[in-house]
Amino acid sequence: MPEEKLGILIPGIGGAVSTTFVAGVERVRRGLSVPVGSLTQLGSFTKNNEELPVSEALGLATLDSLAFGGWDIFPENLHEASLKAGVLKQSDIDKVKDFLEEITPMKAVFSKEWVKKLDGTHVKAQKGHRALIDALKEDIATFKEKNKVDRCIVIWCASTERFLAPSKVHSSLEEFEKGLDENSPDIPPSMLYAYAAITSGVPFVNGAPNLTTDTPAFNQLTEKYRVPIAGKDFKTGQTLMKTIIAPGLRARLLGLQGWYSTNILGNRDGLVLDDPGSFKTKEESKLSVLDSILDPDRHPELYGDFYHKVVINYYPPRGDNKEGWDCIDIFGWLGYPMQIKVNFLCRDSILAAPVVLDLALFIDLAHRKGMVGIQKWLSFYFKSPIHNKGELPEHNLFIQLNMLEEKMREMA
Amino acid sequence: MPEEKLGILIPGIGGAVSTTFVAGVERVRRGLSVPVGSLTQLGSFTKNNEELPVSEALGLATLDSLAFGGWDIFPENLHEASLKAGVLKQSDIDKVKDFLEEITPMKAVFSKEWVKKLDGTHVKAQKGHRALIDALKEDIATFKEKNKVDRCIVIWCASTERFLAPSKVHSSLEEFEKGLDENSPDIPPSMLYAYAAITSGVPFVNGAPNLTTDTPAFNQLTEKYRVPIAGKDFKTGQTLMKTIIAPGLRARLLGLQGWYSTNILGNRDGLVLDDPGSFKTKEESKLSVLDSILDPDRHPELYGDFYHKVVINYYPPRGDNKEGWDCIDIFGWLGYPMQIKVNFLCRDSILAAPVVLDLALFIDLAHRKGMVGIQKWLSFYFKSPIHNKGELPEHNLFIQLNMLEEKMREMA
Amino acid sequence: MPEEKLGILIPGIGGAVSTTFVAGVERVRRGLSVPVGSLTQLGSFTKNNEELPVSEALGLATLDSLAFGGWDIFPENLHEASLKAGVLKQSDIDKVKDFLEEITPMKAVFSKEWVKKLDGTHVKAQKGHRALIDALKEDIATFKEKNKVDRCIVIWCASTERFLAPSKVHSSLEEFEKGLDENSPDIPPSMLYAYAAITSGVPFVNGAPNLTTDTPAFNQLTEKYRVPIAGKDFKTGQTLMKTIIAPGLRARLLGLQGWYSTNILGNRDGLVLDDPGSFKTKEESKLSVLDSILDPDRHPELYGDFYHKVVINYYPPRGDNKEGWDCIDIFGWLGYPMQIKVNFLCRDSILAAPVVLDLALFIDLAHRKGMVGIQKWLSFYFKSPIHNKGELPEHNLFIQLNMLEEKMREMA
Amino acid sequence: MPEEKLGILIPGIGGAVSTTFVAGVERVRRGLSVPVGSLTQLGSFTKNNEELPVSEALGLATLDSLAFGGWDIFPENLHEASLKAGVLKQSDIDKVKDFLEEITPMKAVFSKEWVKKLDGTHVKAQKGHRALIDALKEDIATFKEKNKVDRCIVIWCASTERFLAPSKVHSSLEEFEKGLDENSPDIPPSMLYAYAAITSGVPFVNGAPNLTTDTPAFNQLTEKYRVPIAGKDFKTGQTLMKTIIAPGLRARLLGLQGWYSTNILGNRDGLVLDDPGSFKTKEESKLSVLDSILDPDRHPELYGDFYHKVVINYYPPRGDNKEGWDCIDIFGWLGYPMQIKVNFLCRDSILAAPVVLDLALFIDLAHRKGMVGIQKWLSFYFKSPIHNKGELPEHNLFIQLNMLEEKMREMA
Repeated sequence: MPEEKLGILIPGIGGAVSTTFVAGVERVRRGLSVPVGSLTQLGSFTKNNEELPVSEALGLATLDSLAFGGWDIFPENLHEASLKAGVLKQSDIDKVKDFLEEITPMKAVFSKEWVKKLDGTHVKAQKGHRALIDALKEDIATFKEKNKVDRCIVIWCASTERFLAPSKVHSSLEEFEKGLDENSPDIPPSMLYAYAAITSGVPFVNGAPNLTTDTPAFNQLTEKYRVPIAGKDFKTGQTLMKTIIAPGLRARLLGLQGWYSTNILGNRDGLVLDDPGSFKTKEESKLSVLDSILDPDRHPELYGDFYHKVVINYYPPRGDNKEGWDCIDIFGWLGYPMQIKVNFLCRDSILAAPVVLDLALFIDLAHRKGMVGIQKWLSFYFKSPIHNKGELPEHNLFIQLNMLEEKMREMA
Repeated sequence: MPEEKLGILIPGIGGAVSTTFVAGVERVRRGLSVPVGSLTQLGSFTKNNEELPVSEALGLATLDSLAFGGWDIFPENLHEASLKAGVLKQSDIDKVKDFLEEITPMKAVFSKEWVKKLDGTHVKAQKGHRALIDALKEDIATFKEKNKVDRCIVIWCASTERFLAPSKVHSSLEEFEKGLDENSPDIPPSMLYAYAAITSGVPFVNGAPNLTTDTPAFNQLTEKYRVPIAGKDFKTGQTLMKTIIAPGLRARLLGLQGWYSTNILGNRDGLVLDDPGSFKTKEESKLSVLDSILDPDRHPELYGDFYHKVVINYYPPRGDNKEGWDCIDIFGWLGYPMQIKVNFLCRDSILAAPVVLDLALFIDLAHRKGMVGIQKWLSFYFKSPIHNKGELPEHNLFIQLNMLEEKMREMA
Repeated sequence: MPEEKLGILIPGIGGAVSTTFVAGVERVRRGLSVPVGSLTQLGSFTKNNEELPVSEALGLATLDSLAFGGWDIFPENLHEASLKAGVLKQSDIDKVKDFLEEITPMKAVFSKEWVKKLDGTHVKAQKGHRALIDALKEDIATFKEKNKVDRCIVIWCASTERFLAPSKVHSSLEEFEKGLDENSPDIPPSMLYAYAAITSGVPFVNGAPNLTTDTPAFNQLTEKYRVPIAGKDFKTGQTLMKTIIAPGLRARLLGLQGWYSTNILGNRDGLVLDDPGSFKTKEESKLSVLDSILDPDRHPELYGDFYHKVVINYYPPRGDNKEGWDCIDIFGWLGYPMQIKVNFLCRDSILAAPVVLDLALFIDLAHRKGMVGIQKWLSFYFKSPIHNKGELPEHNLFIQLNMLEEKMREMA
Repeated sequence: MPEEKLGILIPGIGGAVSTTFVAGVERVRRGLSVPVGSLTQLGSFTKNNEELPVSEALGLATLDSLAFGGWDIFPENLHEASLKAGVLKQSDIDKVKDFLEEITPMKAVFSKEWVKKLDGTHVKAQKGHRALIDALKEDIATFKEKNKVDRCIVIWCASTERFLAPSKVHSSLEEFEKGLDENSPDIPPSMLYAYAAITSGVPFVNGAPNLTTDTPAFNQLTEKYRVPIAGKDFKTGQTLMKTIIAPGLRARLLGLQGWYSTNILGNRDGLVLDDPGSFKTKEESKLSVLDSILDPDRHPELYGDFYHKVVINYYPPRGDNKEGWDCIDIFGWLGYPMQIKVNFLCRDSILAAPVVLDLALFIDLAHRKGMVGIQKWLSFYFKSPIHNKGELPEHNLFIQLNMLEEKMREMA
């Protein structure tokens, strides 16, 4: 009996992260590469003193069962888009050219209002929130049928929208649906995608810092449709390092006086974040991580007064090779100061691709297990884990890992 | 009823670490400084959902109950030695001048054979292992009497001895004692101190990478005298960072191609390590940490072939302000390379002083609780945790922290 | 016959640069310190194969002949201001306390319009450009009389004013004086100081990137009053390094793809530059240096398309210890890319103080020699050397040094 | 009339530097690449206010006139060797595959005595110094004939030999030739190559720090045969930066307390330098540069007591992408300390290849102009410029550039 197929639908499928993810999965399927960075493919966990491989122990969808589709504001097929992204070497891409050429983005829902720095050419003509949602839902249905796919998930790999504070329209499902009817200006494209997915019974994962499903309205919606969600903002370069190092300082009770983080990046992501509106969304996401790790309330003498600054600068020479520089001012015994500087020459999409894979497989598992709403155990993968009202997000990477392993043990 | 006093006896009491520790404790006692970096003074742990302050919950010796003494190869009192060390500001030292001036080192057991770069002037005249041990034991007894101290611990803060591979003389207590009788050349000063302490019923902590108690002979000795020991090599600067960052790479299953670590330091420690014999002892200690964290056997495709290089260079302009530079070559999705560089402008003694304090109080607690032999739960504080035969050392700082907290919960 | 006295008058005398300069000169006079970084005090040049010490060979004013005064928006005397600046150690300051306490700032001409982030409390009450100029001229006259000073110079060490593009009011002396009469909003405080100085026959040096004397109006004014001027923006930390490294790349014809420069600083200067208006003034100054060194017109294939980005971030933990991080993307043989990263942990005022001293003595010399207008040979000291119409500024530090030495040979 | 051909003969032609050089020249000849970093190809100089292109103004040999040959201890042709070197991308190499395949190394003169870490397989069978010299001279003659080459130069791009202090056998030509007759153990292979070249009337350039021609014996030999020589040790990565930055510090009279330089590299060069004997040769070369730039005798208060440490570590993950980290401890006004850290992610062969080209063309020009012996004006290209007795080497890159331009003006 052949395995059921799982469809992975990606807003922003033509971007650097998505193309690196899709081309990579196909390379792995052909035995050409190793899916480094993926816990679902390479990881294991311990249960009753036994070492269990993640994928097998949990019955995750296999790589062979995956089908890919999505939307983009540019019309290029995934082979062209991969080359344009400039992440993988041409020779690596060309070995899966036949496969990539077959994947062509569907027209995107896009508004320059929300992403100032981009000009989309491959955009849906429909007007109005409801019409766009209907078009997206039809896209999902068509994809499933055409690819003979049993189950789907949607994972947002598109751009950071400009900052949006939660307001009345997001405060309940009723208000939100009224907002949809009235074409509320406080409902950005990402919410239309999420609404279309969830009301199609499809889980939604948010890889950007956009508000999207992080609202009471969507909590109610996921309850109603019995669908799991996860987000937000894939934890990759500098913030990943931050949530590794900060727990170390905390473990040793070394004090923190200041943490300056600058990023330079030259890809489309960098261009988008050059707009102050989009940057603010990202900044909020990146600034939040230290407090919950360091717990200034418990240790005001160590963490009560640190200065945290996050800067992102568009710098084209760097391309997708995002580079972070952190200057961390700490203090030790008797308050004497010391400094740590971290220069991370990372590659954004290389770090994000395995995160996309793991999240797709885990959220699908959650769905099959009947889990609904915010999946807190997936915090491990996010800069800004969404959480239920009254709870605090957990940012410490090692506690996040414990939470993930605990849940895996439970589900195994 | 007044509290019992605890004596802290330190080989190398005139060095940078010891003087920073002693001056610091006195500053804290006078309310002039905060003991940043000390879990026993500032930390807490959770038991049954209750947050418990470490010192109180465990009934640790208080700072007020501490008395200090020790040995050094230079005769200066601790005020002079603190100034010479150049770690603390003169104005900070001078506020506890009266206290520091009262502490004068006892003559040390020293052999240039074992520490090539130093010339001690304040050295015991006795000849032969047994005679030196007797002298040390008398020192301990005299210290206890003079200071009206009920309990003692010895913590080694002196130099790194040249490399010594365990051999027959260390293989059993019987062999070792024969070696003592015959003045075996394979028994360095640090073993004489440890032997003197343990046979006086005093716990011994090893802050250097020296072999010292890490032998079957000493395991038997601690059993016989019902004394706890801990070691070895305080985990402070670069290695501390390494055991913070490596678990993060491991958590995300990012591969490692190489890790280059260079250190520059200009204090007496740097001078000592400029000798290849002493450096080899240190190198072994520093090189061991990655394997057990990354587990190459489980993940040969990620960690089976990394190149790990550790360099230490004596560089006088840096003084006690040790500086590390790490160049970490990692790889992600599909094997694509990335780099992390870490420049740690640290202060060796500022990081080590709270470690000395915590270890002194914890080993004393262990002693009072009747715990004997290697205290594995103190691995958190060491570069090269000693461990029982057949066990693997744990280097992951976060697992070490869990072990420590688990034991604290147990003892609370 | 006693030497004539030279008065050094400083707008911003209570700031970090000025106090470090004044306290330092007095320490040098008392034999307590070495004036490191000062060419006039430590340097020499070659003439006819003879090595000549700068000060003696040129007959510069001696340190003993200097008297100090100035204006500030805060009333503290220079001892208090030095302590507040946090640059020099208290113990170093206190050795010249008696001297510093005697120097008290005169009330400043200040407008929050031009420096948004500061609130001055020690500010002249007069209203209107002309009235303020008269007050400043009276200050100068009073200072000369009180200090029995024969000659004076004014050197601006105050804050960066918000960006000001040259306009009609600056286009000629006539227009400018009309602007003074009409209280033109395009005339900032720095121009009032410069006008007051020059019309008092006193040379003016501009240590900030403010427009000030860099206009046709002031060129005419200096001609009329036969006074030399120099500026603008002391070349100290990151830009100093930039004009050292860029000539090296140019010498070897290594190509440049991008140069990213970020700065963190926490002193008053950093606070002022946190305002976008003031930052723009600084940014223009810092961005200009590469073009003239690399000469993209001659080498379009190497320098025709580089991306130059300069960022300044206010970061209080750093205090006066400004820190720069440069990420330089170069390319070599066949276009292959390489990277240089420079982390400069510098101290702004420590680098600026000897520059202030040298400029004060050199501009005074120029005045005595009858030199008038822009002193191009002092470009060595400036980020943004002012230059006559039709000329290009020289930024290459080594060519600037040649120009300076050439002029010294001429004058010797 | 067709142009005369110039033969470039390279000991170590199969190495990373040589293959990058040869493949690059051919790519440039085919219009595929730009010879970035080459003054002879891209540079110009000013004479009588006229801008003159170097190659044309001096009548240098053109790229089209070059023929390539050489020796190596491995037999691979230059296409295979280029791929193995791992410097250029395969796609770049393959575009000149036909050309590279035609070039096959001649058997090398090699002795493991002098380069411990390498095992050559493609080595001359002859025994004895004289026999080997004869074989090399025959190689040169055969190459000229076969390639119809009019003139030749030899440029050493092979490995660093172990340290050799000059001794009696190098003290005069007579002693040296006696040493040849007696197979003196103090005559390494590089001297045999140089002797063979010079006595064939062929100029010799030394790209390694080996002693080779830097002896009285060779001075006499070049006089006798009227041949120019240049050396030693191509100035490429870290030392290049050092001779750029140190002049900047000197220009501003900033003091130096220490300069720590570490290098990691993973190519064959790194392997060779992992041997202490070879490293010592390199270390001497790298350590020498600061003194002559900073002139401690003139400025003992600034440069009289700095600590200079150079470390090279073999680190395979880095490959040819040599990486340097410099930690520079400087001090300014009143002696206050500051730090500069430079991380140079360079590519050794990419920096060296244009240096090889320039030196080959310049030394040929010198030969045609009848210039004999040490060519000091080529110091610009060397870490350790050879110089006549009684002269000091010049290390300041900007003074070296002036010397080079001066000579070009003279010859134009």
